[in-house]
Amino acid sequence: MTIPHSVRAILAFDVGGTDTKAGLVLSAAPGEIPEIRDIQRFPTALDAEQPGEVLVEFLAGLVDRYTAAHPEFAVDAIGVSVPGLVDEQQGIGIYAANLGWRDYPFKASLQERLARPVAFGHDVGVAGDAEVALGAGQGAENAMILVVGTGIAAALYVDGRRLRAAGYAGEVGHAMAPAPGGGLKIMEATGSAGAITRRYAAASTGFIGGAREVLERAQHGDALAAGIWSEAIAALAFSIAQAVAMIGVSKVVIGGGLAESGAALFEPLAAEIDKLLTFQPRPSLIKASLGQDAGLIGSALNAQALLAQQDESLSVSTDNGEGLEAIL
Amino acid sequence: MTIPHSVRAILAFDVGGTDTKAGLVLSAAPGEIPEIRDIQRFPTALDAEQPGEVLVEFLAGLVDRYTAAHPEFAVDAIGVSVPGLVDEQQGIGIYAANLGWRDYPFKASLQERLARPVAFGHDVGVAGDAEVALGAGQGAENAMILVVGTGIAAALYVDGRRLRAAGYAGEVGHAMAPAPGGGLKIMEATGSAGAITRRYAAASTGFIGGAREVLERAQHGDALAAGIWSEAIAALAFSIAQAVAMIGVSKVVIGGGLAESGAALFEPLAAEIDKLLTFQPRPSLIKASLGQDAGLIGSALNAQALLAQQDESLSVSTDNGEGLEAIL
Repeated sequence: MTIPHSVRAILAFDVGGTDTKAGLVLSAAPGEIPEIRDIQRFPTALDAEQPGEVLVEFLAGLVDRYTAAHPEFAVDAIGVSVPGLVDEQQGIGIYAANLGWRDYPFKASLQERLARPVAFGHDVGVAGDAEVALGAGQGAENAMILVVGTGIAAALYVDGRRLRAAGYAGEVGHAMAPAPGGGLKIMEATGSAGAITRRYAAASTGFIGGAREVLERAQHGDALAAGIWSEAIAALAFSIAQAVAMIGVSKVVIGGGLAESGAALFEPLAAEIDKLLTFQPRPSLIKASLGQDAGLIGSALNAQALLAQQDESLSVSTDNGEGLEAIL
Repeated sequence: MTIPHSVRAILAFDVGGTDTKAGLVLSAAPGEIPEIRDIQRFPTALDAEQPGEVLVEFLAGLVDRYTAAHPEFAVDAIGVSVPGLVDEQQGIGIYAANLGWRDYPFKASLQERLARPVAFGHDVGVAGDAEVALGAGQGAENAMILVVGTGIAAALYVDGRRLRAAGYAGEVGHAMAPAPGGGLKIMEATGSAGAITRRYAAASTGFIGGAREVLERAQHGDALAAGIWSEAIAALAFSIAQAVAMIGVSKVVIGGGLAESGAALFEPLAAEIDKLLTFQPRPSLIKASLGQDAGLIGSALNAQALLAQQDESLSVSTDNGEGLEAIL
């Protein structure tokens, strides 16, 4: 199969504390899930002294590598997502526990280094954008995209817009929830896949496995496993019910490892949420549909939107009604 | 003092379950708190069969009364706020416990009956709009305007916009919070002025007074009163901390009767909120500054914005660059 030179693509990077995933996201018709080519993982370049600068150089190296390996694609823009606290409007990585930066101006640095427009976003935020644009949250005006893995974070949408608050919106894993045995703890200390594994392992010496294995034991009569599973669901239900009552979320899309648990997660979760609401309509609970690539897709969508914006302002500034078509 | 005929004003109504407050809000320069003339209270017209229709007729009667009594004012538009669940975008009163309507199209009915543009809003929402535009929340991008009275509701602002979610955003009084003695209850069952009074009266036969008197007793060594006061503050702190952690609120403006308690409220509240947050910046806590008239002012601001919008679209549709000035 030969691909015509000049197929347009976005090079997208999903930077994690251990690995960085990269892929060429091909431009697709509006509403269609884009194809991603040559998805690869690379160990994220870490540096205690200059974490921001080193990451920028690392990404620049990957851009060179991808553009050299794929001369058939015209890479118009770059999409990058990172974990932690991210101020997307300012293009700043505020803080990321495992990566070390503090208030690093990624968007500006990357645009200068890569000489291309860069969409810079929060990993869970851009994955949420993809689910709302093309996945399980499609068309939702008031939605919570809840990613339950080692930790927990959410992308929150109200009135059709993702809430940002300079990077502080959506950190639901760090909101307080009733803790097993009384008192309050941050929600992800009970509700995350990481917490399920850790709590079970702490009480059951010799256990090797993850949240999936804890669920299996619970389903085979292990009372300790069943208790920890139920407590995780109660914590997740608390957080979802808060989002419903406080900001009127009506659709909850659950992603991350725990979402693979199916009915063992969704059924008791719906029942627990129901108990915590009064007059509010019950939210629909749906499994995320774009899987592990939601981050790359979301970054690419945001990079595409950035290009469209630039084309539009170019079109306006040249005062030429056909500017947009001419450029595209 | 004579007022030139043609002083422009908005007639604003703050409809409550018992009384409706009315006033002529004079147009003011941007950023200035407008003067309100002839503030009066009228018993709200209630009707079990036709609550919406009867309220519209009641407001129409008040409009006639005000315009007849004040021929010196040109009433360009009407601002109306109601309690309960309100879909402001659709102009619908979804539900209000004491008033009886269900999905009544107030905005359309009022505009037809009054032959004027009508801004229709939620009482706490429009009071919040006034505080953010001209009061204690001025300029805040991420703010919670928390009105603590008989019940509790909030207007929530993220990224400079009030969250609506078709009327369901901001009902923080009905979100769950840890209850005194264990378990969970809706937050206003512990944190409201109404709850403070009710809980103290239930445990102290013969008590007559309100939350202020409970606070006075607490300050004079009454342990029961002190406990109930502290529990109310813990409930409010929980709700505020959830808003900080979930949506990144950084400024909290407290209004309603309880806000008059001063340091006895604000100091322990800040201390409790601090305990419930981890990495998040602590929100500033400020007393609402527009007082009981915030609702009338907010309704008037929204009516003015509606007029400006209509003028703008008129200006565009007549393709006349001076349209806006010509109309104003």
